[in-house]
Amino acid sequence: MILNQIYLDNLIKTALLEDINYCDVTTDYLIPADQNGSGRLMAKADGIVCGVEAALRVFTLLDSSTKYTILKNDGDEVHYGDDLLTLEGKTAVLLKGERTALNLIQHMSGIATAANKYARIVEGTNASIADTRKTLPGLRPLQKYAVMTGGAKNHRYNLSDAAMLKDNHIDAAGGITAAITKLRARVGHMTKIEVETRTLDELREALDAKADIIMLDNMSPELMKQAVAITAGRAVLEASGGITDETLRAVAESGVDIISVGALTHSVKAFDISMYIK
Amino acid sequence: MILNQIYLDNLIKTALLEDINYCDVTTDYLIPADQNGSGRLMAKADGIVCGVEAALRVFTLLDSSTKYTILKNDGDEVHYGDDLLTLEGKTAVLLKGERTALNLIQHMSGIATAANKYARIVEGTNASIADTRKTLPGLRPLQKYAVMTGGAKNHRYNLSDAAMLKDNHIDAAGGITAAITKLRARVGHMTKIEVETRTLDELREALDAKADIIMLDNMSPELMKQAVAITAGRAVLEASGGITDETLRAVAESGVDIISVGALTHSVKAFDISMYIK
Amino acid sequence: MILNQIYLDNLIKTALLEDINYCDVTTDYLIPADQNGSGRLMAKADGIVCGVEAALRVFTLLDSSTKYTILKNDGDEVHYGDDLLTLEGKTAVLLKGERTALNLIQHMSGIATAANKYARIVEGTNASIADTRKTLPGLRPLQKYAVMTGGAKNHRYNLSDAAMLKDNHIDAAGGITAAITKLRARVGHMTKIEVETRTLDELREALDAKADIIMLDNMSPELMKQAVAITAGRAVLEASGGITDETLRAVAESGVDIISVGALTHSVKAFDISMYIK
Amino acid sequence: MILNQIYLDNLIKTALLEDINYCDVTTDYLIPADQNGSGRLMAKADGIVCGVEAALRVFTLLDSSTKYTILKNDGDEVHYGDDLLTLEGKTAVLLKGERTALNLIQHMSGIATAANKYARIVEGTNASIADTRKTLPGLRPLQKYAVMTGGAKNHRYNLSDAAMLKDNHIDAAGGITAAITKLRARVGHMTKIEVETRTLDELREALDAKADIIMLDNMSPELMKQAVAITAGRAVLEASGGITDETLRAVAESGVDIISVGALTHSVKAFDISMYIK
Amino acid sequence: MILNQIYLDNLIKTALLEDINYCDVTTDYLIPADQNGSGRLMAKADGIVCGVEAALRVFTLLDSSTKYTILKNDGDEVHYGDDLLTLEGKTAVLLKGERTALNLIQHMSGIATAANKYARIVEGTNASIADTRKTLPGLRPLQKYAVMTGGAKNHRYNLSDAAMLKDNHIDAAGGITAAITKLRARVGHMTKIEVETRTLDELREALDAKADIIMLDNMSPELMKQAVAITAGRAVLEASGGITDETLRAVAESGVDIISVGALTHSVKAFDISMYIK
Amino acid sequence: MILNQIYLDNLIKTALLEDINYCDVTTDYLIPADQNGSGRLMAKADGIVCGVEAALRVFTLLDSSTKYTILKNDGDEVHYGDDLLTLEGKTAVLLKGERTALNLIQHMSGIATAANKYARIVEGTNASIADTRKTLPGLRPLQKYAVMTGGAKNHRYNLSDAAMLKDNHIDAAGGITAAITKLRARVGHMTKIEVETRTLDELREALDAKADIIMLDNMSPELMKQAVAITAGRAVLEASGGITDETLRAVAESGVDIISVGALTHSVKAFDISMYIK
Repeated sequence: MILNQIYLDNLIKTALLEDINYCDVTTDYLIPADQNGSGRLMAKADGIVCGVEAALRVFTLLDSSTKYTILKNDGDEVHYGDDLLTLEGKTAVLLKGERTALNLIQHMSGIATAANKYARIVEGTNASIADTRKTLPGLRPLQKYAVMTGGAKNHRYNLSDAAMLKDNHIDAAGGITAAITKLRARVGHMTKIEVETRTLDELREALDAKADIIMLDNMSPELMKQAVAITAGRAVLEASGGITDETLRAVAESGVDIISVGALTHSVKAFDISMYIK
Repeated sequence: MILNQIYLDNLIKTALLEDINYCDVTTDYLIPADQNGSGRLMAKADGIVCGVEAALRVFTLLDSSTKYTILKNDGDEVHYGDDLLTLEGKTAVLLKGERTALNLIQHMSGIATAANKYARIVEGTNASIADTRKTLPGLRPLQKYAVMTGGAKNHRYNLSDAAMLKDNHIDAAGGITAAITKLRARVGHMTKIEVETRTLDELREALDAKADIIMLDNMSPELMKQAVAITAGRAVLEASGGITDETLRAVAESGVDIISVGALTHSVKAFDISMYIK
Repeated sequence: MILNQIYLDNLIKTALLEDINYCDVTTDYLIPADQNGSGRLMAKADGIVCGVEAALRVFTLLDSSTKYTILKNDGDEVHYGDDLLTLEGKTAVLLKGERTALNLIQHMSGIATAANKYARIVEGTNASIADTRKTLPGLRPLQKYAVMTGGAKNHRYNLSDAAMLKDNHIDAAGGITAAITKLRARVGHMTKIEVETRTLDELREALDAKADIIMLDNMSPELMKQAVAITAGRAVLEASGGITDETLRAVAESGVDIISVGALTHSVKAFDISMYIK
Repeated sequence: MILNQIYLDNLIKTALLEDINYCDVTTDYLIPADQNGSGRLMAKADGIVCGVEAALRVFTLLDSSTKYTILKNDGDEVHYGDDLLTLEGKTAVLLKGERTALNLIQHMSGIATAANKYARIVEGTNASIADTRKTLPGLRPLQKYAVMTGGAKNHRYNLSDAAMLKDNHIDAAGGITAAITKLRARVGHMTKIEVETRTLDELREALDAKADIIMLDNMSPELMKQAVAITAGRAVLEASGGITDETLRAVAESGVDIISVGALTHSVKAFDISMYIK
Repeated sequence: MILNQIYLDNLIKTALLEDINYCDVTTDYLIPADQNGSGRLMAKADGIVCGVEAALRVFTLLDSSTKYTILKNDGDEVHYGDDLLTLEGKTAVLLKGERTALNLIQHMSGIATAANKYARIVEGTNASIADTRKTLPGLRPLQKYAVMTGGAKNHRYNLSDAAMLKDNHIDAAGGITAAITKLRARVGHMTKIEVETRTLDELREALDAKADIIMLDNMSPELMKQAVAITAGRAVLEASGGITDETLRAVAESGVDIISVGALTHSVKAFDISMYIK
Repeated sequence: MILNQIYLDNLIKTALLEDINYCDVTTDYLIPADQNGSGRLMAKADGIVCGVEAALRVFTLLDSSTKYTILKNDGDEVHYGDDLLTLEGKTAVLLKGERTALNLIQHMSGIATAANKYARIVEGTNASIADTRKTLPGLRPLQKYAVMTGGAKNHRYNLSDAAMLKDNHIDAAGGITAAITKLRARVGHMTKIEVETRTLDELREALDAKADIIMLDNMSPELMKQAVAITAGRAVLEASGGITDETLRAVAESGVDIISVGALTHSVKAFDISMYIK
């Protein structure tokens, strides 16, 4: 599995402690401990599935003897009615894990589906879709993984692994050129430097100072086109801010390289998946 | 604060470890450690704010000497342009905490605003809006708190504190009556028992077996009206499944007591809030 | 297993870290790593056993290849001399896990045995025995589970899942009626409301305000009888405070529904069990 | 404070997460957030108090602005009616922390009181009372501290810091002499070696092999007297097994040095303390 | 502080739990709890100090009322006899924290001093010194921070934030060009790609495939010079493998950009610092 | 395994979270998930290997189906070119675990090799080599285990399990005799008492007060010889402070029992081991 198993196990354990607490009063009091059953997860919508192994892991963590068949893999396109995963094991385990498994796979598939939708909108242009640091506490690894599974790209992971110069940094350093120069002298060679710009003049200064990436903050597609022309491949250009489903294609066609979309992780719509237990 | 401080601190620490890792290469290399600044969080939309103290806590955990003024409290109605919180402290601390604070307050306010919207739709009817267990791993306390702040109600917290009989439980016990009887003999006196029903016959059996709450699963508003008449106050009725913004009022007017809405927590739209740092 | 496996594993790991630290200097220096042996846990008293799977889990966590036979299940009545569990595996593992396993099963069986003793005393009356929130830090799930295994019932789990009105709450709200009304408007439909009363007048007010449960605090069995008559089934009545082994039956015969006993969890007498290793 | 603050804070946080979960529905919905009040903890029995600072810490962790006066210190003898600690702060904080604080101080004072009772029984003899490793998961530091506060002594903390030879170890090594010799060659100079013996012959062999401590397992006071005479100060003698309140003095008068009592920590009777909040 | 406070606090708490366990039998039994004292940390060698605030934090975590004066800051050059930090507070706190504080600051200063030594050796050349992922479990943030404090640079933090192509990756992808092309299509725009090369032919292929960084693995300074000439600024060149104190300057003079040194973090010599307590 | 498996697993999980974060962008994007491969760990130096099972555990935690052959056990003498461990499993798992496994085994083998070197230097004398509490945060169990594996001995583990009287303790108690007397009355019978001395007079007082161990702090070998003569077996003598490779043999020949060496754990040189993956 691509997503770090150690992280995933910790997260699932957290979820199971939240949801089961010390017991499941309905299931533990009514379902015989030795009753076996089967379950299946079925898509109730069209999109990109993500979290099949994560959902499965809920059940094998509750009972390592649970048997399963994976029918769809993370990243697969699925349609309403497709079975994703079948399970055989103790009925009580299937019932106890159901909600936690669905919460995971619905969230992850929701992200992957949205990421895929945006990626398709910009298909054929120079632009890629990227996520942001607008993630939920404790879920960043999961959310970044789902973005990637959907076909979009991951922006920097955190404040340590790449630099992003905002107004406050630039002002404190005495301008874009000074800031980049000062920073370049201290960061490692694996660390890219991005600069936020609001005007073409700022863009030009950032280019001259050899920023790796330049963010075009809340610019119109028109202005972006000029920025692309000015840049002429000397830096990666990232469009950010105020981009909607409607304007996305136009932004992509301006020639920018990256369009970052916070909504991919901060405003996720769960992807509808049901579990049937017999 | 209503939300458990111990939980909140743990969650924020998790988020800060994710986002800052060992340092913020941009801020720590460019902003003098002793530079002071001020910040404010401003609403960029209309709704119910939630998470003001949570956002604040990000900064006081990073630096306990950070000063602040709370301008809006959790649950307050806010409008585009309203300041929510002002901060004074080290510029580096304001910059390092910004994203984590915004991620929290935007998510919580998104939930509270949605909860409030739904609660207003059913205003004047007998119905209340309730959340579900469709929450994200590790975030259930936060999400349940935001739902309540927005003016909706919290359903059961987990599988331990209330019973919910589904088909599998009923089949294993040999019918609704048998299931309720068996369960009532074992659960404590603080534990309510809810039964999922799909037909009026099931409803009648659940009523006779003295279920505390009866869920009307995917029934039409028409059928619900009949259910309300049959029930005549002998149990709490909960409508669930397939309810949309459009049908919500009609469902509420059927006379049911509770309408549970998974989207409140599984499909949250972040509420737009910006932070300005000087 | 009914007790949440994730919780149990965490607890056992905590215990093993406390007890073994980095190594067992006696065992690791004297017992050959490849020496195999067998062990058995034997009851040294009569009562209800609880924690057999928990004790077993200590050994399988230390070495997943440990073999075993479970001879008594949680909730079984056992007598002095009964074998509960036999183990085969590495001698070093049996020796290292012995104390942790015994500490768990002796505590859990002690609770289950006491819960069972109380439950038998009230047999034939209307009353059930319930536990309280008087548990030890980190052990509430374990202790609540043992109470239930012994045949008594679980009171509310924590401050979130049910309401209990004490003097301070009633005074702040302006009386019993006001407090219940205010609370009912905010809590969810799964949340029961209990009120502490000290007089029959308070009882009457709580009944009129439709409290779900009414606690009769430190009342004599005589007074409780009157309370039962007044209540006439309109609420669940809970007796609490100053109840001893001697008075328990009289209290139960007063007709109350629930008798809560803090000693079940705050003053546990370990149930004697030995482990023999060969 | 003697008890490690880091450990204590972690333990209290665990307890508060168990007990409050995301909110206290009674207190948070009825007590105004800005209402102030006062509380006091009062002894309802006679004994040795332990856990005053631990109880206090519950409230300062919930709200660091809580004010307090410590009236009795850990280890003090207290009597029914004595106030131990007074608090001033938010009423909601006092109500939310009450149960967790009482659970801690009642358990710790129960242990200290029992330890003190045993220590007094053996007063005037050569013997000291010691605890064992028969502690509850996660509570060993707390329980060991309470034993010491009550005036008894701490046995080894865990399997790493001292050696205890049982039958299995002795058999594997080929006898008491071989076992001690082999062990002495490997353990550090701070590690004491204790040997369990059941006969005077075993005692003699252990003495010749220069065991630091020799446990007299389930011997009669008569036999122990002979053991003391044989030993003549060449090793520390520990009596263990089957010792009751009635036989304790006789055991102590046999001349042994240490009497270890598992019940100090595995069968604790909570010490009655109440909290009054106004 | 640059090093993430949340991380540092967690690490110090781990260390204090290891070292103090439940109490300090020497200090807690002999030093009066209210005795005040002062302490100072003094350098016993010449080098770059790192961890002054970390050492201080040990004492303020044990007792938040501890007073202090910071005399040297992280990154300062210090000489034998220089005082680094003075403390005033409870004598017991100073004694309990001493070892943990020294363990931290000696390790961190050891790293910073070594990093500085290497950085000075290459001064005046084009080369910078960088660390590696050869760190100790749980200490990576601390060790990376100390490297940076000493004046060397941080390589990638982990396997997520930058790509490094080894033989296995190249073989699986079907060659350097194929590997880089495939990878570039999937990684985000903030992610740099480095390729390990062993020959000049591999170097040329990596250059043509537009690798961001090219590692010259175990090449002689001679060969590196040729590599620098061939590269002509088209990529960053990193020398790695088999570099000693003696060969470091020659390697640097070959014209490479980065020399990575695993010993900076995997073979740390503690920097001698003493604490004096009065 | 001697080293506590629960501790080791936690430590490895910490390391894998640090190193892999959410994914390995190089391996996960280029190596097919179902590609199998083999790996071997080979010594690149001569010494004592330690951490073979620890290194192995990295891979079985990442994928429990990984197969392996252990060729050298902890404590074995190994030479350049010796294979230590071979692995068969998923290529991606071998690549992801490589660095974490090497970091562990190189550090542990470095300690064991140094411990062994020192132990050999003092061979034939009365002296043993012991470690200290100069360990790295979170690594004490691992480091103590490696010291023991190398053939040296473990000093006290922490401040709870043995007493060490320093100047501050002695001054507070009013002298060596008073300090030992006071302490002996409180500590348990498993707790040894050591006293730091700087002069022969202090030594004599400590002997008369029946200290278990007496540390000779920074004494010359000459003075130590006198100390040995004075002591005449009445206490264990520990040499500490300022001992180098050159002076170690002379110190050992003075007749002291224990020579403690901080460098064993605070200044570890990694033992060179490579991993080859095919």
